Amino acid sequence: MDDKEIMVKMVLDRWNALNSIVDNQLDKLSDHELEADIVPGKNRGIYLLGHLITVHDAMIPLLQLGTAQYPHLTEIFLNSPDKFIDQIPKTQELRVIWKLQSSILTNLFNGITVDEWFARQGAVHEEDFKLEPHRNNLNIVLIRLSHLSYHAGQLALLKRN
Amino acid sequence: MDDKEIMVKMVLDRWNALNSIVDNQLDKLSDHELEADIVPGKNRGIYLLGHLITVHDAMIPLLQLGTAQYPHLTEIFLNSPDKFIDQIPKTQELRVIWKLQSSILTNLFNGITVDEWFARQGAVHEEDFKLEPHRNNLNIVLIRLSHLSYHAGQLALLKRN
Repeated sequence: MDDKEIMVKMVLDRWNALNSIVDNQLDKLSDHELEADIVPGKNRGIYLLGHLITVHDAMIPLLQLGTAQYPHLTEIFLNSPDKFIDQIPKTQELRVIWKLQSSILTNLFNGITVDEWFARQGAVHEEDFKLEPHRNNLNIVLIRLSHLSYHAGQLALLKRN
Repeated sequence: MDDKEIMVKMVLDRWNALNSIVDNQLDKLSDHELEADIVPGKNRGIYLLGHLITVHDAMIPLLQLGTAQYPHLTEIFLNSPDKFIDQIPKTQELRVIWKLQSSILTNLFNGITVDEWFARQGAVHEEDFKLEPHRNNLNIVLIRLSHLSYHAGQLALLKRN
């Protein structure tokens, strides 16, 4: 394993570990629990699930792997706060999308070469990238795993003992 | 910047960003808010603060940078659940430790060379490291930043609007 391969493994291992944590959390929560406010007046679990799906979906174009799969969710779960839009997808539907998306992203990530992981993000200009080579594709996943962990901590609070 | 330097920057940038997020959260929370249960019956903010201090303190020996500074907190904030031990440090004291620890860790991290970041963790055997070179010092910080983010998501819920 060369240095770059090691680094890719470090980040993807953590990404996968956090996804497994959230999978487990979702399996243990009933729809009713997931639809509750985490703290009264704050986000519901279901909003966080939709939010995570939308944020992860946006990685696909960012990583130049294709187009977003669920663009209709952006308005509900990214551009609007929870409870602002009445009509949101059913909890069961979001659970299905979460699982499907996980397998899609795993497949896409597995197809990325080590050099591609360290290549420039689509949104960064070539000139800027020379000065800021950390703005590569792998850094997108690093930032997203930190975001995922933040909300996983919140989802953990939904399970009332 | 070579590949290893880029990767160190990626991880430390994220570590620093999350520390700033938690600094801001703590600044905005009164002692009274920090001493509340995040969700009734779950951890208090103050327990999470002590827990983060203890977990970060344990990085010092793990990274072979010296000895832990606050070993007396381990029993309270790592080995015991919240509210199991009555006598815990005052909220103001933990706030001071948090700030002090941040500057200590920043100094220590700045003194680590790139090659040292990619060297074997103290707890991993040399033979194992040949097969699992991702178990290096930088990976400790990567895993800890994901842990920090998890609890930062929970601390965010303490601020009642």
